Amino acid sequence: MSDTHSLDTLVQALRRLPGVGVRSAQRMAFHLLQHDRAGALQLARALEGAVQQVRHCTLCHTFTEGEICSICADPRRDASKLCVVETPADQAALERTAAFNGRYFVLMGRLSPLDGIGPGDIGIDELLARAGDGVVREVILATNFTAEGEATAHVLAQALKSRGLAVTRLARGVPAGSELEYVDLGTIAHALVDRH
Amino acid sequence: MSDTHSLDTLVQALRRLPGVGVRSAQRMAFHLLQHDRAGALQLARALEGAVQQVRHCTLCHTFTEGEICSICADPRRDASKLCVVETPADQAALERTAAFNGRYFVLMGRLSPLDGIGPGDIGIDELLARAGDGVVREVILATNFTAEGEATAHVLAQALKSRGLAVTRLARGVPAGSELEYVDLGTIAHALVDRH
Repeated sequence: MSDTHSLDTLVQALRRLPGVGVRSAQRMAFHLLQHDRAGALQLARALEGAVQQVRHCTLCHTFTEGEICSICADPRRDASKLCVVETPADQAALERTAAFNGRYFVLMGRLSPLDGIGPGDIGIDELLARAGDGVVREVILATNFTAEGEATAHVLAQALKSRGLAVTRLARGVPAGSELEYVDLGTIAHALVDRH
Repeated sequence: MSDTHSLDTLVQALRRLPGVGVRSAQRMAFHLLQHDRAGALQLARALEGAVQQVRHCTLCHTFTEGEICSICADPRRDASKLCVVETPADQAALERTAAFNGRYFVLMGRLSPLDGIGPGDIGIDELLARAGDGVVREVILATNFTAEGEATAHVLAQALKSRGLAVTRLARGVPAGSELEYVDLGTIAHALVDRH
């Protein structure tokens, strides 16, 4: 309808969000305009604020508003350990465990040749420079245990080892609290191979 | 993390969208900031534009940018037939059939006592005024065939009939193109009762 141009524009803009199709976008636009116009304006301001403020840490590539992020800036973190993750969400998951006191490098993606994402797109040169600073002793590869995450870990491991760095990978095994009967075969097989 | 305040604000704002939890909001924020900052700004502008421009048609309550919507303003539409729907999306579905040439009243919701949505919230007084303008001869109730939609239709039918208006309801029956074997029992029962 020609008299709902700004509504149509909003639906199109909402469709650019990942996982949002035309039905969801229409439902979102309807909800905001009918029930939550304050929320719509709040979201508009949050989008503008984030685009303006958020940039990448020059050391680890994660999102930050400063020159370097709080973890890279923290002198209490062990600079000899560098943990490589795919996204800030993965980094946050590791931080919640409180089991790692080193620093991070956030790839902001993973190798995905089918999507045209090659080594240059995940900052492999910056990672090699970062890991080769003379302080880092061990690089822990914590990419996801998916096909793409495994491939990324493989490529990174080769490049890092060729520079004489110690490279480790998160252990695969049976998840905490799980019963063997319900764990998939591949996981059990890996847990057997990596037994200690 | 204290150095990602605007990112956290964006995640919170995205959670106000219907159907978006904290994981989805994080994924959306990551996608926009990492891969589609132009899309983020476009969405911000679309939200502001829609909130500023979109209001309700004074005759049928649907979203419009003018005083009255294009359907209410169209003199070729049959003013003696008024079709009551829950949302603009339902109205659009009916329009796509090209089988209805009358006008609409859009409730912008449905009765839902559990959510605190009563007759006042779906504009029942405006509907009664609209239907009682002396021109409308038939009110077609096209609320959804859900429990809430049926209850809404029931309440509206009683109020409209008490004012001497002819009230009809969309027919229930077997969907076009379907095989009886796979149609639910309630639908078949209704199709039997309403056979013609």
